[in-house]
Amino acid sequence: MFHRLTMFIVFASLVACAQEAPPPAAKVANTAIAPERPKYEITTEAVFSAADVPAYAGSHDAVYDYIDQHIEFHVAELQRWLQQPSVSAQNIGVRDMAELVRQDFVDLGFQEAELVETDGHPGVWGYYDAGADKTLAVYMMYDVQPVDPEDWLSPPFEANIVQHKAGKAIMARGATNQKGPQRAFLNALQSIIATEGKLPVNLMITAEGEEELGSPNYPQIVDQYEERLKTADGVLFPMSGQNLAGRTTLMLGVKGIVYFEAQATGGDWGGPRSAEIHGSNKVIVDSPVWRLVKALSTLVSEDGNTVLVPGFYDDVRPPTEEEQTLINGLATSWNDELRLGLYDVDHWIDGMTGRDAIVEAIYTPSLNIDGIWGGYTGPGTKTILPHTATAKIDTRMPYGQDPDKQLAKIRAHLDAQGYNDIELRMLGGYPAAQTSVDTDLVQSVIQVANKYGEPPTVNPRIFGSAPFYQFTERLGLPMLPAGLGHGGGAHAPNEYFIIEPNEGSDIAGLAEIEKAYVDVIYALSE
Amino acid sequence: MFHRLTMFIVFASLVACAQEAPPPAAKVANTAIAPERPKYEITTEAVFSAADVPAYAGSHDAVYDYIDQHIEFHVAELQRWLQQPSVSAQNIGVRDMAELVRQDFVDLGFQEAELVETDGHPGVWGYYDAGADKTLAVYMMYDVQPVDPEDWLSPPFEANIVQHKAGKAIMARGATNQKGPQRAFLNALQSIIATEGKLPVNLMITAEGEEELGSPNYPQIVDQYEERLKTADGVLFPMSGQNLAGRTTLMLGVKGIVYFEAQATGGDWGGPRSAEIHGSNKVIVDSPVWRLVKALSTLVSEDGNTVLVPGFYDDVRPPTEEEQTLINGLATSWNDELRLGLYDVDHWIDGMTGRDAIVEAIYTPSLNIDGIWGGYTGPGTKTILPHTATAKIDTRMPYGQDPDKQLAKIRAHLDAQGYNDIELRMLGGYPAAQTSVDTDLVQSVIQVANKYGEPPTVNPRIFGSAPFYQFTERLGLPMLPAGLGHGGGAHAPNEYFIIEPNEGSDIAGLAEIEKAYVDVIYALSE
Repeated sequence: MFHRLTMFIVFASLVACAQEAPPPAAKVANTAIAPERPKYEITTEAVFSAADVPAYAGSHDAVYDYIDQHIEFHVAELQRWLQQPSVSAQNIGVRDMAELVRQDFVDLGFQEAELVETDGHPGVWGYYDAGADKTLAVYMMYDVQPVDPEDWLSPPFEANIVQHKAGKAIMARGATNQKGPQRAFLNALQSIIATEGKLPVNLMITAEGEEELGSPNYPQIVDQYEERLKTADGVLFPMSGQNLAGRTTLMLGVKGIVYFEAQATGGDWGGPRSAEIHGSNKVIVDSPVWRLVKALSTLVSEDGNTVLVPGFYDDVRPPTEEEQTLINGLATSWNDELRLGLYDVDHWIDGMTGRDAIVEAIYTPSLNIDGIWGGYTGPGTKTILPHTATAKIDTRMPYGQDPDKQLAKIRAHLDAQGYNDIELRMLGGYPAAQTSVDTDLVQSVIQVANKYGEPPTVNPRIFGSAPFYQFTERLGLPMLPAGLGHGGGAHAPNEYFIIEPNEGSDIAGLAEIEKAYVDVIYALSE
Repeated sequence: MFHRLTMFIVFASLVACAQEAPPPAAKVANTAIAPERPKYEITTEAVFSAADVPAYAGSHDAVYDYIDQHIEFHVAELQRWLQQPSVSAQNIGVRDMAELVRQDFVDLGFQEAELVETDGHPGVWGYYDAGADKTLAVYMMYDVQPVDPEDWLSPPFEANIVQHKAGKAIMARGATNQKGPQRAFLNALQSIIATEGKLPVNLMITAEGEEELGSPNYPQIVDQYEERLKTADGVLFPMSGQNLAGRTTLMLGVKGIVYFEAQATGGDWGGPRSAEIHGSNKVIVDSPVWRLVKALSTLVSEDGNTVLVPGFYDDVRPPTEEEQTLINGLATSWNDELRLGLYDVDHWIDGMTGRDAIVEAIYTPSLNIDGIWGGYTGPGTKTILPHTATAKIDTRMPYGQDPDKQLAKIRAHLDAQGYNDIELRMLGGYPAAQTSVDTDLVQSVIQVANKYGEPPTVNPRIFGSAPFYQFTERLGLPMLPAGLGHGGGAHAPNEYFIIEPNEGSDIAGLAEIEKAYVDVIYALSE
């Protein structure tokens, strides 16, 4: 997955403000008139508001009491998870963590709890048969990012309780991404079972140990339970969904992505094939760097913002009626000035603002150069004619587009322009995912959110990507990352998860987070 | 200076063969028809041949005998220089070496021998007043490239005698670039003075300690002796001019160069100003990487070989009659197949061969990307929108073009295309230099070369660059890098200089190298 959690957190921190959009920034005049991108009209003024969804009315006091009485034990359960390293990139403690998760499923009373071998780190499968009508699937990740221990205020695998400006927090690698919220969810299960004897829904959990590597083998885990997973009513991804101000954003969809490298190297077309040569030879030798520059240049308009690849904008599903009302809702809290300031950007492309920018971002495939390199890149002067140059490129695809097809269009365009020597290497990719707001899963989560705080902002689809298509497209299930609570520092030092917020904070503490999960589970069962 | 010695050596190794040019390689058909570069006609079939110059007839047997009798001492003199490190880039031993050179001038009987302070490492000035009519200026560099000692067969500052496939050699950093040939030249002076009492010419030596840094402060050394240097009859740069086969090439000219960086960064035009942002934002945020790619793309034709900057090809002095005959001479030994094979290149641009390629290379300014970088360049995927991207670019200028003017044209072109935000930073530059074959200096060197071996190939101008304009343009003097002998490994491990070649080799050994310098000095005095 591609910086998914980072994207979530950034997004969540942005929706707290609801000022008017500022006047459009002036568009730079020096770019040629760009070819046109398709524009999508919003034809309804209807506005979705989560406030219109009634708050969850159920109350499960015995379970809540149990949680309050066992909160110290529950904190210790989070610490137990966090003290077990599981750094997938460095294979540190990964299998031990998988075994720990499996044993927790056993201890909770799951009828099935097993490691799932893959070509990489193992997954964990858990099935809890409640004999219920409804079945909730849960996606978990048990791996974490690497750490640089000297950068941490508290050692990353001690999971100490520290004082954060927002309240008492656990500091550890994985505190918020993603062990903290996930073990909180299991604490909620434990509390229901301890109090009521069993869960009100059946549960299917697939946990993977390679999320931080891009989930290369997660499809293999799904392979083994595909037909059973398809019978579930929805997929929940437990997360800490509140920002520092306590506001929650729900994301119903993600864009797809194709990430690839484009490389020019000397060959039959010209240029040095095997090594750099002295730069003075450029005068009679073709340059692979110039070739990459010219080939890339054919991909986009003068301003770099409209892709010239034939068919690049095809296959996008235009905004549905539902999505339009969600966009209208999102626009009420969208703040251009705040976002531009955060990124230190003068203006969005074409001077767009507000709803226009939202629609552009969600329904337009992008083509981004993540990196480019070739030749001498150190200080000072070195005069070489490099034999190769490479760019890392990604396209983010709206719902409806297919990764292989998009890459094939780029290939075909380069070939048509005479650049069949430019090598394209796909490093990863998957399509977009979309869940309807009009599903039991999403409605239950909104109801519960409305019970515990301000109604959430509901975002039809973020600009970022995550392989949620595994659930929405492959299994045909609604899928939602959701949960109360606040954390930060994912992929960074001093990662934390608030367990006891300051007095008066709108952030939920661990007990409230667990109670909300209890409510979501009951809401779904009803 | 820009890899000058590397260029020399590569060139020298290529002129040993004199086969016919192979048939032209097929031109790639997929590039658009390029705008035209100026073409220069060769209007004479006259061919310069160094064989037509009579061999030097003088004989200085007493001096030759002295050299033969003191050859072990002379080898030790080279070792003494080579055992003193003088790594300019790391400031290792630099001032000690300058002082060693100065003291050697004193010991040889120079009337003036002084360090010349500059903004960088000191230069050394030496003046030997022979009361003669003729004055020879000598350019020297006493600094060397850094070393990685573990890569060396013999420690780089021990200057041990080793067995090379071509004969007995000294192995040391600076062996051939440039201490070996330079101390051999001083050995020749010492032998003349010891035998005859004094030199037959006056000598002015300017030695610098920053050649390997690009000679940034050499003009300051010239500043202090400019009027006196202008009275010299020519400038010699002692070097090991023979390739492994013993063939010599004389280079009468060099191209100029401007080396600069072009950088795109987010700003008022758009894009993130201060740091990379999440790549998913590309959909509504301008990209500095795309901006650099598009800006660079406007500089050259589709095939990357014709520069579209207005006036870029102006001011070039077309081939003179003399240069045309030299080109015709060079063409007789030019071997496309050998050169293409060395570089692992399929064909020269536009399928040119032979004399056409030579004329193109000498009279066409080039525009080369030495390096390009921006964003994430490591393994795998990282999805960012970089806030900046940079290219290192050089243009090699034929005789007649001015560095500042050429860069100003590129600046004006980018501005006219709307890219006034692209920052251009000049890292170095100087114009071309040209010496006529019809000068006492060059004629003397050819005469002596013809005495000791096969007539040299005379190249009117190499594609590479060196700041010889300091001599030819600023001081108005003929300038020639010249000397017998063979070495290799400049800027690389295991640098060597042959002092006693194998039986039957056409390479000159140290004694013969010194005798040839003796003859050049006498030839110039006559």
